Amino acid sequence: MEAVLRTITADREASLEELKAFLRIPSVSTDPARRGEVRRAARWLAEHLSRLGCRVEVRETPGHPIVYGEWTGAPGRPTLLVYGHYDVQPEDPVEEWTSPPFEPSIRDGAIYARGAADDKGQVFIHLKAAEAWLRAEGRLPVNLKFLIEGEEEVGSPNLEPFVMAEAGRLKADAVAISDTAMLAKGVPALCVGLRGLIYCQVDLQGPATDLHSGIFGGSVANPAGVLCRLLARLTDEQGRVTIPGFYDDVRPLTGAEREAFAALPFDETAYREALGVPALDGEAGFTTLERRWARPTLELNGLQAGFTGVGSKTVLPARAMAKVSMRLVPDQDPEKIVDAFETALRRHCPPSATLTLTRMHGSKPWLAPTDHPALQAGARALERGFGRRPVFIREGGSIPIVTTLTERLAVPILLLGFGLPDENAHAPDERLDLENFSRGIVTVAHLYRELT
Amino acid sequence: MEAVLRTITADREASLEELKAFLRIPSVSTDPARRGEVRRAARWLAEHLSRLGCRVEVRETPGHPIVYGEWTGAPGRPTLLVYGHYDVQPEDPVEEWTSPPFEPSIRDGAIYARGAADDKGQVFIHLKAAEAWLRAEGRLPVNLKFLIEGEEEVGSPNLEPFVMAEAGRLKADAVAISDTAMLAKGVPALCVGLRGLIYCQVDLQGPATDLHSGIFGGSVANPAGVLCRLLARLTDEQGRVTIPGFYDDVRPLTGAEREAFAALPFDETAYREALGVPALDGEAGFTTLERRWARPTLELNGLQAGFTGVGSKTVLPARAMAKVSMRLVPDQDPEKIVDAFETALRRHCPPSATLTLTRMHGSKPWLAPTDHPALQAGARALERGFGRRPVFIREGGSIPIVTTLTERLAVPILLLGFGLPDENAHAPDERLDLENFSRGIVTVAHLYRELT
Repeated sequence: MEAVLRTITADREASLEELKAFLRIPSVSTDPARRGEVRRAARWLAEHLSRLGCRVEVRETPGHPIVYGEWTGAPGRPTLLVYGHYDVQPEDPVEEWTSPPFEPSIRDGAIYARGAADDKGQVFIHLKAAEAWLRAEGRLPVNLKFLIEGEEEVGSPNLEPFVMAEAGRLKADAVAISDTAMLAKGVPALCVGLRGLIYCQVDLQGPATDLHSGIFGGSVANPAGVLCRLLARLTDEQGRVTIPGFYDDVRPLTGAEREAFAALPFDETAYREALGVPALDGEAGFTTLERRWARPTLELNGLQAGFTGVGSKTVLPARAMAKVSMRLVPDQDPEKIVDAFETALRRHCPPSATLTLTRMHGSKPWLAPTDHPALQAGARALERGFGRRPVFIREGGSIPIVTTLTERLAVPILLLGFGLPDENAHAPDERLDLENFSRGIVTVAHLYRELT
Repeated sequence: MEAVLRTITADREASLEELKAFLRIPSVSTDPARRGEVRRAARWLAEHLSRLGCRVEVRETPGHPIVYGEWTGAPGRPTLLVYGHYDVQPEDPVEEWTSPPFEPSIRDGAIYARGAADDKGQVFIHLKAAEAWLRAEGRLPVNLKFLIEGEEEVGSPNLEPFVMAEAGRLKADAVAISDTAMLAKGVPALCVGLRGLIYCQVDLQGPATDLHSGIFGGSVANPAGVLCRLLARLTDEQGRVTIPGFYDDVRPLTGAEREAFAALPFDETAYREALGVPALDGEAGFTTLERRWARPTLELNGLQAGFTGVGSKTVLPARAMAKVSMRLVPDQDPEKIVDAFETALRRHCPPSATLTLTRMHGSKPWLAPTDHPALQAGARALERGFGRRPVFIREGGSIPIVTTLTERLAVPILLLGFGLPDENAHAPDERLDLENFSRGIVTVAHLYRELT
């Protein structure tokens, strides 16, 4: 192990130069004009994995390729599957970047570039850990499989079919994903819970066309007004969701979980100031972290009706639309909840308007078994990498691949985030802290041993 | 009077040809490219008034000109001020017209062209009535003043300043405006009530920027959700407005008024089918005509927040906006109501969001004194013109010039509409019924005598 760690230290500058080359490729998956650049990033990654000694396949899909690589030179030993993505968010607004988004710049102890944290830099941590082992010891203590896609930022449309078709090949004893954040600088974290998601569109149709609000107003239902009333009754003044049955299957936080959340170094004032809100808000009886990580929500993501330009137009709109999503926690079932949501809406929709509900997508909540040996191994590796026991945190968002892998491979998943919460993953001046980059490589190098 | 009526009949074809020339000028006031055409229509009108024997002024404004003409050859007799407008709505969508919008076409007993009903055709009725008197009798039984603007379709921004500055010159005993509709073909109507209007924009600011609804959702107020809750509590399930004090000054309909409304030939099924709604709706305890004409309303004219495109985006919006208007009836005071509206919103706005209310415009409700001699004169003139006693109706909309003239000139106003409700005033295939055109001229010719 000493040799591995020495190699990591010795290679630090060379690794950063390689990472810069990876970051220079503008692999923006949502931009059709960058299709060639996305392929170039896939090839770059495939060549890098090949040089490590992996068998590599660049799998074509209807969208961008999936890069799959495996090193299976440790028969009888556990297998770790590493998931990540090589595509990046668009760089807009490019004028707000301090240095060009695709010309990596090192300053203030961080490397600045689009993709530095999300997710090229974190994927690269795993490549460098494997390389250090192979160079220092000529072998890995585990078998490794890399599943690196190019469509994470556009919803991974081709990943699930691949996982379904290749479940046998992807078989592993644990999955590691580094695409999240630590709790704070110096506070390593293992993310052990994600919320699920239901996303719907609600359309209300009133009159056949927009009407003059003076001539007709008062004699027909206004779909915008009906929509507001229908949506308003789904929550109450205490921040609770009032859909019948909504909380029935919510697994309550244990006393130990609440104590653990409360013990985390979380600065609520700094959080409020960073968001720019006059006051925080949410479900009565829960703390901010509990509200974000362990309580379900109902959010309006969009509203549209009638005239929304500058000035006034006395229109009674023909239609009104809302995008509504719900975040779910264990053990809520998306199908059951979306049915209850639709029932609640329809029960109160007057006969003078026509409601259409479009169920757009959903994913189940996820909670890792924190006492599983693989998670304990991850925690020990983080402690060795960062010199401090990691905290167990959750994430309020949803990572569909986690649900997919959990369901298809029935395997524990380690969410080992090496980013920081303020590293601007989807914004200008995205960066990755260089100390965390190095400590991440050390952590992963330890993880292989801890898993055996 | 016989000679006047004979002249009207004899001149019918020639009048229609002149009207066609007026209608051919595409005086679309909202279109900067048509600025020259609007001026051409003003000059056409001014020349026509001059030929009648009026002293005419084309008054420049920062926008389009106001055409003012007067015939004051009846000293000691009453003075009638005629208001109208020579500008028209845009012709879009032009492909839906059966015949070109600015090439008048006569078919099925109507003249089809943009402006035929709104308002060139109705203005022209007044010109032709005066002309018939002057040609047949060499004089008018009253003094006449014409105030014809070119900005009605863009909100009359320069009319009120003109009326304020020229109140002395505009002094009259009654005002006639022909810019509304009869109740139905064969059913002449005198419009004796208009609703007032308050129009506001409500903006709610939550976080400084859009946030990820998973990572942050549940811990900050969602301004779209807050907006829906604030707006929803302004009305109840019975279609009533719940703003404290909202109905305090509403003058109840008298039994006689309700009976008169109920006696009107109004086909509720045809109305519902024309609007394309599954059911009518509105304030409990009132009929459709009462709801439209004599009850105040609160309508949402527009809603906007977050993501409204195709698909899904898990955004917790930073802002939400609503356009909200209220229609007022006698004796509600716009200032008092908008204050109550703001108080109701602010009382329930949580400290976690910031509410901004922008008061955009307002106008007072209007109710004509139906027993005033001028209104009785108008009713008798309509009876002579159409062979049937007119019904007294109201309009749910607001006509700001009516309020302005009522306040500035303190004079009774006759809303003598010669259009029909289905003549597509702001839509393709706008038209004016030719029988109503002729009967309108006869009505106005009688009106002069009835006013004396």
